[in-house]
Amino acid sequence: MPEYKAPLRDMQFVLHDVFQAETLWSELGLEDVNRELADAILDEAAKISQNLMSPLNRSGDEQGVSWNDTVVTTPDGFPAAYRELAEGGWGALAGDPEYGGQVIPKMLVLLFEEMSYGANMALGLYLSLTSGAALAIASHASEELKSRYLPDMYAGNWAGSMCLTEAHAGTDLGIIRTKAEPQADGSYSITGNKIFITGGEHDLTENIIHLVLAKLPDAPAGSKGISLFLVPKFHVNDDGSLGERNEVSCGSVEHKMGIHASATCVLNFDGAKGYLVGELNRGLAAMFTMMNYERLSVGVQGLGLSSASYQSALDYAQERLQGRSPAGPENRDGPADSLMVHPDVRRMLLTQKAYVEAGRAFAVFVGQQLDTAKFGSGEAQQRSAGLVELLTPIAKAFLTDKGLEATIIGQQVFGGHGYVREWGMEQLVRDTRIAQIYEGANGIQALDLMGRKIASNGGQNMAVLIQEMRDFAAAAEGEIAEFTQPLLDAVTELETLTATVLSAAGDDPHAIGAASVEYLHIAGLTIYAYMWARMAGVALAADQNDAFYAGKLHTARFFMQRLLPQVKSLAESVRAGSAVLMDIPVEAF
Amino acid sequence: MPEYKAPLRDMQFVLHDVFQAETLWSELGLEDVNRELADAILDEAAKISQNLMSPLNRSGDEQGVSWNDTVVTTPDGFPAAYRELAEGGWGALAGDPEYGGQVIPKMLVLLFEEMSYGANMALGLYLSLTSGAALAIASHASEELKSRYLPDMYAGNWAGSMCLTEAHAGTDLGIIRTKAEPQADGSYSITGNKIFITGGEHDLTENIIHLVLAKLPDAPAGSKGISLFLVPKFHVNDDGSLGERNEVSCGSVEHKMGIHASATCVLNFDGAKGYLVGELNRGLAAMFTMMNYERLSVGVQGLGLSSASYQSALDYAQERLQGRSPAGPENRDGPADSLMVHPDVRRMLLTQKAYVEAGRAFAVFVGQQLDTAKFGSGEAQQRSAGLVELLTPIAKAFLTDKGLEATIIGQQVFGGHGYVREWGMEQLVRDTRIAQIYEGANGIQALDLMGRKIASNGGQNMAVLIQEMRDFAAAAEGEIAEFTQPLLDAVTELETLTATVLSAAGDDPHAIGAASVEYLHIAGLTIYAYMWARMAGVALAADQNDAFYAGKLHTARFFMQRLLPQVKSLAESVRAGSAVLMDIPVEAF
Repeated sequence: MPEYKAPLRDMQFVLHDVFQAETLWSELGLEDVNRELADAILDEAAKISQNLMSPLNRSGDEQGVSWNDTVVTTPDGFPAAYRELAEGGWGALAGDPEYGGQVIPKMLVLLFEEMSYGANMALGLYLSLTSGAALAIASHASEELKSRYLPDMYAGNWAGSMCLTEAHAGTDLGIIRTKAEPQADGSYSITGNKIFITGGEHDLTENIIHLVLAKLPDAPAGSKGISLFLVPKFHVNDDGSLGERNEVSCGSVEHKMGIHASATCVLNFDGAKGYLVGELNRGLAAMFTMMNYERLSVGVQGLGLSSASYQSALDYAQERLQGRSPAGPENRDGPADSLMVHPDVRRMLLTQKAYVEAGRAFAVFVGQQLDTAKFGSGEAQQRSAGLVELLTPIAKAFLTDKGLEATIIGQQVFGGHGYVREWGMEQLVRDTRIAQIYEGANGIQALDLMGRKIASNGGQNMAVLIQEMRDFAAAAEGEIAEFTQPLLDAVTELETLTATVLSAAGDDPHAIGAASVEYLHIAGLTIYAYMWARMAGVALAADQNDAFYAGKLHTARFFMQRLLPQVKSLAESVRAGSAVLMDIPVEAF
Repeated sequence: MPEYKAPLRDMQFVLHDVFQAETLWSELGLEDVNRELADAILDEAAKISQNLMSPLNRSGDEQGVSWNDTVVTTPDGFPAAYRELAEGGWGALAGDPEYGGQVIPKMLVLLFEEMSYGANMALGLYLSLTSGAALAIASHASEELKSRYLPDMYAGNWAGSMCLTEAHAGTDLGIIRTKAEPQADGSYSITGNKIFITGGEHDLTENIIHLVLAKLPDAPAGSKGISLFLVPKFHVNDDGSLGERNEVSCGSVEHKMGIHASATCVLNFDGAKGYLVGELNRGLAAMFTMMNYERLSVGVQGLGLSSASYQSALDYAQERLQGRSPAGPENRDGPADSLMVHPDVRRMLLTQKAYVEAGRAFAVFVGQQLDTAKFGSGEAQQRSAGLVELLTPIAKAFLTDKGLEATIIGQQVFGGHGYVREWGMEQLVRDTRIAQIYEGANGIQALDLMGRKIASNGGQNMAVLIQEMRDFAAAAEGEIAEFTQPLLDAVTELETLTATVLSAAGDDPHAIGAASVEYLHIAGLTIYAYMWARMAGVALAADQNDAFYAGKLHTARFFMQRLLPQVKSLAESVRAGSAVLMDIPVEAF
């Protein structure tokens, strides 16, 4: 069974040395947050993920959740662990302080999330859904709803869920059928069936606050007729105590490939009482507050699980004796050398390391933009808000695509031992896999990136990002050219392809959809190159005798020479255009 | 639950139109095998895979095998189904006719195997292990052993297993500890523990014939001291009846990511009576007869499961209504268009189709070489024997790597429905995954390819393959240039890289290991380009109004334009050399 160990040193390196978080927080007026506090939070997060969450990961997978006549039971130890997480304040990190939330920067919260997912993704998910739901309520609900629901959500007494999908409507929310009928008291009566609701029912908290997309009887067709409602599992009395059960119940839980300890529910709303959040028919926009929160968080799932996989694979490769070095025996007194002598095992481990560490830096980079967008002002604030828009779909899709790739590699390092359950490597693959699918499948993220986030504003935010990468490379001098030159080449390709596809999209409605997935991967690889160049810059200025910094330089080099070239073949695929996809008649498939 | 449908038309296309099997079989003197018989066998294989094997696939996965005090019970329906397969003669297709085997060409047997795995990989595995063990016995055992064991193995009354791995020795068989002590009667007493033994114990047959690697007490160290022994579960009396139980028992079964219905056993040999197969200390070479058989068969697992995944994904994409075409609604009277209108869904399906159909042609191409090597003579026979050596590791690794990629894509097409168990798409991913690991992990296949199969003979067999591809392209005229030109570019790159790496390997012991995986993928992609060019050639000469042929041309184009370019980035990775992998100190990982 793998024991999760939080990669604290690398987290501190990224936070403090690469992104100089303390300086930024000070500029943003977050006076209570400094390096000392940040490190103390990371330490505590490491303890709780290692000692509380990780030990429940395998048993949670084996036991899974169970459903019996609307009641959902989570695995042994989950309710107590959730209570401890709640009492530790881990559900309120970035909440609205007026209702009991803490003002912890996102850069830091993301690192806690990485640890929680790396240790136990299924358990971490319940917390994440609650935080996301609370954020949507804090951003869009009335004062009355906020004061009634937020304090207990931040305190972890109540959990949250997001109810979008219906059996016939997944990606296409415009065709949902759940109805909301206005009632005399200003509330709404919600009727319909939702599926795939993560944490839709469970025994971790005394109440669950559902955010539900539904349509009024006279609503406009399509997505412009969707409204958002808050539907509590138990009604909440004026004094904050719990009242009767609302008319929402769990019809079953799904049996899934992974995240067995996460309850994925069918929820039946049978005239449940709900409260409008935000404006009528503007529900999708309000829900996007939660969705964007979750999308980044889902990206961090890919990061956390691939980091856990890398740790275990590296330990195993060092301990497992098998075969001899091609250059002659290294462990002469032993029966064989360690796996570390084999070039291809190193290739696998370096691929994991290169993706994991660039992914961590990328997540913190997005956190930096989120913090600036939230706490900053003026031009810097606007710039960061634009970057958040641009980077969210990349973070969701690229971190999870590379996350799956890395967990599969980690499993491969273990050979047959990676395929049996005992070592936990296959669970990491099964759990990571959902992150490419839910919260908008990765193909949808790619469409969101090229369509909504680039084409709709003429590539303005992408131009900002490209300029930032160019500026960094231009300012760098000396040895770092080894890393900035391949970065610049990738940036040029990214810029060219952006223009190529936007231009093609003028005449060709399929141009964006035909290019989007490969384009997102090119963008992701280029950003990772930027992250590696920045990390290499810090490492070059540090003590090279410290294996940590030496490792950074070697891995940056590996990334540039062996992984970044993927841009070339992806670019050729993009240039092939849409005809090669669209010309084939359906019956010829 | 997915229902497997054998892709008979494409199988016949590959067999008859692309490879003109009937002509070859006639040239090889296989007078009893003609097109009519081949199609009849394919029809029967389709029936048994669709009607007998496929219905047990989901239930087998859910129920799994169970172990209780050395007894292994397979899922409901498995024993009866195995009996039916045996009675149908499916275990004797390519057996030695002297002992009851049939003389069915491998080109055809591989297509049966594809169907059996696509329908139910776990069940198909028991048959495959038996056939492989029988082949090793037929090739290396004494007349006495052959006549005592082969007839009941071919008849499916007895199954087979291969016992190589020990807890400390997987890839590195040289360090196995299982002992074989010579007995006065000429037999050996086998003692040791083997793990990961597929079909090591089960209730499908009345006896199991284990082929076991072990070392004599005075054997030379390393792999040169390994001998091969036949160890029956039950002793066999001179009259062919079963005697007492031998001293071999199942200590437990593994709990695994997938192939739940396949028993993966710990086998304890406690002074079991065994019989030498082949010569003392030449056991590994004899076992390779079985391993090479299984390696190709494992490759076909990747093919069969990805074909099953493609079928289901295509059906789902046509039926599922979600969103609208970027070019405007197509299904105006419906609530949404089918998934087929979305360019990225087409990209996913075409990627599956391109890999599956090229993979099928590649498998039959290897079968053609195997048949020529077995039944042919003179130069042609030698040429094919060399190609079999070269192609086996590529088939094992590339078919399974692309198999996993394709099953993951198929799951992605289903969105959330692909992650729940009900639809079977996630089982295909979990089952396919083992094929990249067992029978020599794919990294080992890559080393086998570059080291044993290329470097050790100066690239002679690869030169034969390259010449064949060049000759094909040179002979093709007219429209086919669209397909032969990218093929030729890939062939040139493959040839250049072969020389580059072989040259580097002169000074650098790590050169081969550092290049091998990417090199194998370049070789695989180039061979797939060759297969697509050949299929396109046939399609160009056929009726373009037939959607089948139109589909071939469109998919060939898609492969050349959007998948083959992967060669470029892989080549750049190979050129990066070994230093970028080997320079990093272990402590800097």
